[in-house]
Amino acid sequence: MEVSTTGCIVAPRGFQAGSTYCGIKIAKDSLDLGIIFSEYPATGTALFTTNQIYAAPVKLSRKIIQKGRIRAFVVNSGNANACTGDQGYKDAEEMVRIAARYLKISEDELLIASTGIIGRPLPMDKINAGIQAAVNALGSTQAHGNDMARAIMTTDTRQKAVAVRLKINNKDVTVGGIAKGAGMIAPNLATMLCFLTTDVSMPAMLLNECLRNSAESSFNRITIDGHMSTNDTIAIIANGAAGITIPVKSNELQIFQQGLDYVTSYLAKAIVLDGEGATKFVQIDVIGARSRSEATRIARSIADSPLVKTALNGEDPNWGRIVSAAGYAGVELDASKTTLYINNILIFAKGMPTQCDLNVLSTSMKNRDITIRLELGLGDYKDTVWTCDLSHEYVTINAEYHT
Amino acid sequence: MEVSTTGCIVAPRGFQAGSTYCGIKIAKDSLDLGIIFSEYPATGTALFTTNQIYAAPVKLSRKIIQKGRIRAFVVNSGNANACTGDQGYKDAEEMVRIAARYLKISEDELLIASTGIIGRPLPMDKINAGIQAAVNALGSTQAHGNDMARAIMTTDTRQKAVAVRLKINNKDVTVGGIAKGAGMIAPNLATMLCFLTTDVSMPAMLLNECLRNSAESSFNRITIDGHMSTNDTIAIIANGAAGITIPVKSNELQIFQQGLDYVTSYLAKAIVLDGEGATKFVQIDVIGARSRSEATRIARSIADSPLVKTALNGEDPNWGRIVSAAGYAGVELDASKTTLYINNILIFAKGMPTQCDLNVLSTSMKNRDITIRLELGLGDYKDTVWTCDLSHEYVTINAEYHT
Repeated sequence: MEVSTTGCIVAPRGFQAGSTYCGIKIAKDSLDLGIIFSEYPATGTALFTTNQIYAAPVKLSRKIIQKGRIRAFVVNSGNANACTGDQGYKDAEEMVRIAARYLKISEDELLIASTGIIGRPLPMDKINAGIQAAVNALGSTQAHGNDMARAIMTTDTRQKAVAVRLKINNKDVTVGGIAKGAGMIAPNLATMLCFLTTDVSMPAMLLNECLRNSAESSFNRITIDGHMSTNDTIAIIANGAAGITIPVKSNELQIFQQGLDYVTSYLAKAIVLDGEGATKFVQIDVIGARSRSEATRIARSIADSPLVKTALNGEDPNWGRIVSAAGYAGVELDASKTTLYINNILIFAKGMPTQCDLNVLSTSMKNRDITIRLELGLGDYKDTVWTCDLSHEYVTINAEYHT
Repeated sequence: MEVSTTGCIVAPRGFQAGSTYCGIKIAKDSLDLGIIFSEYPATGTALFTTNQIYAAPVKLSRKIIQKGRIRAFVVNSGNANACTGDQGYKDAEEMVRIAARYLKISEDELLIASTGIIGRPLPMDKINAGIQAAVNALGSTQAHGNDMARAIMTTDTRQKAVAVRLKINNKDVTVGGIAKGAGMIAPNLATMLCFLTTDVSMPAMLLNECLRNSAESSFNRITIDGHMSTNDTIAIIANGAAGITIPVKSNELQIFQQGLDYVTSYLAKAIVLDGEGATKFVQIDVIGARSRSEATRIARSIADSPLVKTALNGEDPNWGRIVSAAGYAGVELDASKTTLYINNILIFAKGMPTQCDLNVLSTSMKNRDITIRLELGLGDYKDTVWTCDLSHEYVTINAEYHT
């Protein structure tokens, strides 16, 4: 598996990207509208936020995706078209109509996504001009791919993109992806967007299964502050340009899934690392649970505890906060069977702290990457969650914004 | 209802308190062991943490409380006797034996509680000397009551105590209480302790029902950072010294319940106000829900959102963070029916922000007390949660401690 981090979204054959600045964002040296386009008819699928307060583009894209024939993503940043009422939905429909016209494709062959400020009407004149300019800018060079990764950013501090090349039946297959993450956007939320392209051919149903599997082991494993946005969208297009079709329950499918998993995990981790004020990347493994869902609940309880997150920020191996966060996750535990490792050092066993070398452990806390492994001794199930610490910078960013 | 905030725990007739410094805490000018004692045999009941990792005194007190005959609370601060294994439980048993001997009561007539550092053995020689000194110090003056309120504090910045005098059948009845709260304690948790005394007579079962009702409308309504401790305990003694017995389903019971509710609500709010780094007291009302539990889930989702809490710290009326936190609470919502008031100003309706006067709203955010009212328009149920903001001070306190 060859990995590359440039041009990614246009790395698979038959894909183009075009980006522009059309004036939605204030910063004129930025990009705020981008289009990903397949030169060939293609299948597509998407997953959306489960937040009950969801944005107009999510509502519309959920409808469009039903047919499973998608060959373009049209994305603007700077305005989320969320909490915009009936007009917001009409604007989303208009955005689809405009894009279909310029791209010369059917209105049910493209998905839209928006991210940025909420509660303000989408500036449709700018959207119109932006889509036209982005279509005119379409191309397949690395620069086109890199610009697209930047066009979806809001307050992200760096672009998040990766592509992998796989060998399937001696043919080259590529999966590319870009994402934006935990940067907060005025006045609001950390929308997560992820767009993926691949040059295999695949029925939309099977593609959906692959995307769900991948999301489960990547985006569903991360938590910055537990706050889910109104606009979260993960979407993929498969255009078949590599001349290979992936059959169900096949070895080919396994290889493809591994490639897709690599891309989504890479992007999910990149989102955590670019979390607001994050200084640590923390992997939390809960093992020995009675069920996967109990392991998940405990891992998330630890990951979302502000006391655990501030201790991580302070580089303190605070086993008590971790163990007690596990204790209130709503899962029956036996303290005497519970074992905790921080950075692979056993610090809690049989209901008590161990006599481990605290100097060694404290020194290891200075690393950027921290691992927390909690063994429950109750069963055979496990789960993993990735998170970051809670810093002064996080409070500064989020307390100093004014609506 | 007469309210007083001095001497509180000994305000009901027939109660004494005694406190001492016995060397568990480092600060020599502090108090770290206290005893509340009823001069007469009494009934008692208690509620304990639901954290699965619970401390030895909780385990033992859970056992002792079964008989419902309690006339003393023995409490130390500075060491929580949590995560201390078998030895911790033996130490808790020894603490009960020592206290029963000095108080000349039966071992099943007293509850113990501990708060402070976790994972370290209880210094039993100090506990022994401390209990003896506290018994010798027992008395009923206001100073005795005030010292007791201080003896249970850890990093609380102020004592939390209140007493109310009620008229029941023309007799004076008093309910007194003290609590400690959200002060973090090295290396760990914010243990919540609350001790209550009253001079009515009441069967333990009925007293338990009253305490549960009161806790439900007070301590169960507050959240500082969602982190529940290993040692949380709420306990009450009723000694009958006022010469009145409270019958079931009576008018007398209603008056008593109101008095108890006042005391527990006062103490719960005092805990929030003394939360680490707290600068705001925030009441979150969710109304129009399909069920009480759905209202609770949404109120807690808002209260525990770090994005909402940092916005409150920044005095920003950030409706988007509030509405979206409601949206991911796992409750089905209809954005078009959702209405949000901040400080009684309508800021969100019909899925969109309103044209309210943002200057007036922003100015009102400078008050210490903030109200958030979210109307769901789905049913007739409601709930209320009290919380505080998330400040730089919170991060400083919790990141700078080292295990």
